[in-house]
Formats: sequence, C-alpha cells, structure tokens
Amino acid sequence: MEINKETITTWLKNLQDDICSSLERADGQSKFIEENWTRAEGGGGRTRIIKNGNVIEKGGVLFSAVSGDAPDFLFKEGEHSASPLPSLKEREQKPQFFATGVSIVIHPKSPMVPIIHMNIRYFEMDGNIKWLGGGIDLTPHYIVDEDAKFFHTKLKAVCDNHNSSYYAKFKKWADDYFYINHRKETRGIGGIFFDRLNKDAESDSYRMNFEQNFAFWQDVGKAFAPIYTELIARNKNKSFTEKNKDWQLLRRGRYVEFNLVYDKGTKFGLETNGRIESILMSLPKMAGWEYDFKPEKNSEEERTLSLLKKGIDWV
Amino acid sequence: MEINKETITTWLKNLQDDICSSLERADGQSKFIEENWTRAEGGGGRTRIIKNGNVIEKGGVLFSAVSGDAPDFLFKEGEHSASPLPSLKEREQKPQFFATGVSIVIHPKSPMVPIIHMNIRYFEMDGNIKWLGGGIDLTPHYIVDEDAKFFHTKLKAVCDNHNSSYYAKFKKWADDYFYINHRKETRGIGGIFFDRLNKDAESDSYRMNFEQNFAFWQDVGKAFAPIYTELIARNKNKSFTEKNKDWQLLRRGRYVEFNLVYDKGTKFGLETNGRIESILMSLPKMAGWEYDFKPEKNSEEERTLSLLKKGIDWV
Repeated sequence: MEINKETITTWLKNLQDDICSSLERADGQSKFIEENWTRAEGGGGRTRIIKNGNVIEKGGVLFSAVSGDAPDFLFKEGEHSASPLPSLKEREQKPQFFATGVSIVIHPKSPMVPIIHMNIRYFEMDGNIKWLGGGIDLTPHYIVDEDAKFFHTKLKAVCDNHNSSYYAKFKKWADDYFYINHRKETRGIGGIFFDRLNKDAESDSYRMNFEQNFAFWQDVGKAFAPIYTELIARNKNKSFTEKNKDWQLLRRGRYVEFNLVYDKGTKFGLETNGRIESILMSLPKMAGWEYDFKPEKNSEEERTLSLLKKGIDWV
Repeated sequence: MEINKETITTWLKNLQDDICSSLERADGQSKFIEENWTRAEGGGGRTRIIKNGNVIEKGGVLFSAVSGDAPDFLFKEGEHSASPLPSLKEREQKPQFFATGVSIVIHPKSPMVPIIHMNIRYFEMDGNIKWLGGGIDLTPHYIVDEDAKFFHTKLKAVCDNHNSSYYAKFKKWADDYFYINHRKETRGIGGIFFDRLNKDAESDSYRMNFEQNFAFWQDVGKAFAPIYTELIARNKNKSFTEKNKDWQLLRRGRYVEFNLVYDKGTKFGLETNGRIESILMSLPKMAGWEYDFKPEKNSEEERTLSLLKKGIDWV
C-alpha cells in the first residue's frame, strides 16, 4: 500500500479491530464497549474498553488520529531525539501536525497473568517531518522465567526480521524508559521501545528508510495479540491465594506511580487537556500501597523484586 | 520561648507526640509504629505510621529536620514567592539550609469519615532567610455541610485570632493549590494553605513580624487534633454500604492523582531522592479507578462531586 496518513489510519483501525477480537476470544466472557470522541482542535478517537471479564479485569485498546496546530512540547528537545526541531521562536506560526496510533493497557484479574502495554504511533508535521514510534512492555506480578524468555524472544524475532541492531537498542531503550526512578525498580521485565524513527526525509536514522521502518512498525503491532494471548493461555488457570492478590495490588500501585509520575504520554495528555478518561484508562480497577513493605525471605515476591532491574538478558 | 531551630524542633516533636496520642485515643485500637531515619547529607526524621485501626485504615504523622547544601529547586522562582532568591549563578557556593516540619495524612476506614492532611514547616538559610509554611485541608468522601462549615469555621478562628486578612487569603490559596487540574475538581473542600511567611528579616510580609507569624503557625498545628477528632466522633459510627466503599476507592484514586501529579512536596521528594516510604505514606492502602464513572442522578455522590470546586464559602 501507499503509505500516507489515510492508509496508516485505516491500517491502525483494522489492527484495533483484530486485537479486540483476539482479546475477546482470549477472555471468553466480556466484550469491548466503544466510545467515539472528537477533539475540538481536530481529529478524535475510538476508545474501546473491556472490563470484568473472565481474564481481563480492566483494559483498553485505543485508536486515535488527531491533527491541528503542533503542540508546544514538540519544540522542546525530546530526550530521545537525534536532532531538535526548529525552535518555536524561529517560526512565524505553528506548523500543522497529524498524529495517529493505537495504545493498549490490559490489567488481568489473576495475579498470575501479567499486565501488558503496547503502543504504536505515527507522527507527521509540515516541513516533510514524519516519524514512527512504539513499544511493548510486560509487567508480570510474578516473573516466570520461561514466559519472560518467550516474550523477549518473540520481540527479538520481530526486530531481527528487519534490522539486526534493533532488538539490542530498543530493549535497552525500554529498560531505561520503563523505570521507576524513585523506587529504583523497572516497571516490569521491559520489552522494546523506540521513537522518532525516520524523523525526516533526509535522515537515514538507523540506516533504514521510512518504508522499511514502517514494515517493522507494523510487525510490532501485529505481534501483540499472539504474544499476549499465549501468555494468557499459559497462566490463566493457575490457582492463587489472597496473598498473591495483595501483592498484585502493590505491583499495580507501582504501575500507577510510573504512569502518573513518569509516562510521557500520560503527562502530555494531562498537561494538554487531552481526553482524561482515555488517558487514564491505563490505571487499574484497584491498586494498593503498604508502608515499607518488605517481601518475605526467599519468597516469590522477593524473587520478582530482585528481577525488576535493567539489563537482564532474557533471551 | 526564644525562636530558633532548636526550640522549633523541640516544639514540633512535642506536637507530633500530642497529635499521635490524640489520634490513638480517637482510633481506640491501633497504635503508631515509629521509625527513625537519617539523611546522608544531614538531619533525619521520626516517621510514625498507624494502620488497620478501628477508625484509621492507614495514616502517618511525620516529623523531620534536615539540613545541608540548599537544594537547587530553591533557586527557581517559587510560584508563591513574593520575591525570588538570588540565582544559583550569582553565588559562589551553595548556602546551607535547615528545614523542619510535621506532615500528616490520615485515610480512615469508613467512607463516612473524611481524609485529612496537615503540614507545618519552617525553613531557614544562610543570608538571614527564614520562613514558615503550612496548611490543613479536608477531603470528605461525602461532603456533610455542617462538617464543612465546622472545619472552615475553626480554621477561620485560628486565622482571625492573628490576622483578619489571613483566612480569606489562605483559604483561596488552598482552593488553588489542592486542585486536580486534569479533572477540573478540587481534591476536597480545601482549608488553608500558606507559604514563605516572613521570608526574610527585612520583609514585613502580610504585615506581621516573624514572632507574630510563628504564633499563628503554632496555632495551626495545635488546631489539627481537636478538629479531626471531632470529625471522627461525628461520623465514625455511621453505617455505610458496598456502594459507599466503591465510591471511597474512586475518591482515593483522585487523591493519588493529586499527590503524584501535582503535590509539590511529593514531587520534590521524588526528584531529590527523599525517603520514599515517608513521602508516599500519603497514599491510601487501596484506591480505585473506573472508566468514565458517572454518578447516579440526584445521588450523594453526584452532590459531593458538584461541591468539589473552588470558591465555595463554607463559613
């Protein structure tokens, strides 16, 4: 297909459809509810929420495509940007932008099933600027080594199929991004994260042209459903105790801390008057905090905590 | 007494003792546990936590007194500062600071009892700089008009006893400070908030000298226990339903949003490597989020939501 904003939008909506169908099948009980919304300044979205399912306690698969005056934050240097955009002062008026993407967060009911997050996004702006970003990361309440290996092996295969340097780069990027600095813990076992691929037509960022990066980016989106439904199948029937549920609440508390304190998408949404209910759909139905919690010696909780750090080679 | 950092520290520790005793009596079951900690760069604190009580589900009454090189944030203009401090570049080396205070957050078990927060703090720094700050605010899960009136009337009396302009100023300051901008809601029914009173020896901020402001500040601290124990007594025996508990979780979710996204003390603590368990003791044992929650028409929940706004005259 020709790659332009119309074809990308259509592709993303189809991806949203496919992922929702897969998740409904995997859940076996609950169905997504859909809400369409429009943005005063241009564009809108299709928010799909699922809750109180067999497997999924609360989750969302969100599509949006928004446009208009480019928001100010784009003119600050992004920490991951290879070269900054022209500063706002150098311009006479704000350029027009277009941004579209699919974002997913799934909070399962069982503490034995991991939380997952995926996002892929496309951005373009006047001046022949366009880029791709995305990522998938996994937050098990209890880390199962084989599952962590499976997860990272699948992501590595998606990367390797397009560029042999991507997995190492984007795995490290995820380790650095999904980090709760005040806890000195990663949010989970990481995954991959990338941004501003093929920032502009002149750039040969990561030595792939836009079309090649686009093919990679599509494969990231397509990888989500088979990976997560496999992880559901592996873990959904495991039994668990009240203690496991309590630990799940604490891990969700950390997830809330990450999303409200660090996550760039959330912060941007809150600061720019985004659609709050879509932005904060990432928060769990329930989360908990306990003063100075210490896991029991040699417990599964202690083991999981010990693995919430950067730089672990899961493959 | 002579007012210096030693006498202020002693006074604050006694206040912490008194408040903990009052809260233990009001709870009737649980006792505070104490943890002493030290700060590598100077000073430390006495953290007291109470949990799983008759009335109090989770709460903390924290004393700290820290000192050392003045942290960088002080050299940014505070939004509430009347005149900025000299910029860091104008100085050869960092001045020494001393800061002490008592901070309280109480999350009750019953949704019929309000959440309360109080903080009083004293700061001094080389160059004859010193100031006082503080505040009390109330977050009822269900707003009871007589209780809101009682709460604000008591705070107004504390203010009026020292300066007839303080209540109006500091009540507005609390409305503006305890505001969840992305929700367009106040955190609760406000209270009073003030900062940088008597910033330096030359200032006649608010036309009171340091000694006069200090007396006001002490009265704010002393007001906490009688106000909150009265609110506990009025509400602790009210019956409640599962629906009331669910609503409590949602209100606590908003409390978490405020503290992690906006609260300056929390943000500062997270950014400067403060003692995380003390900083985040303000978070409830459990909180919840529901996608696009709408209260029932003419319900108590709808009524409370309608009153979470700035500028209500509760007195």
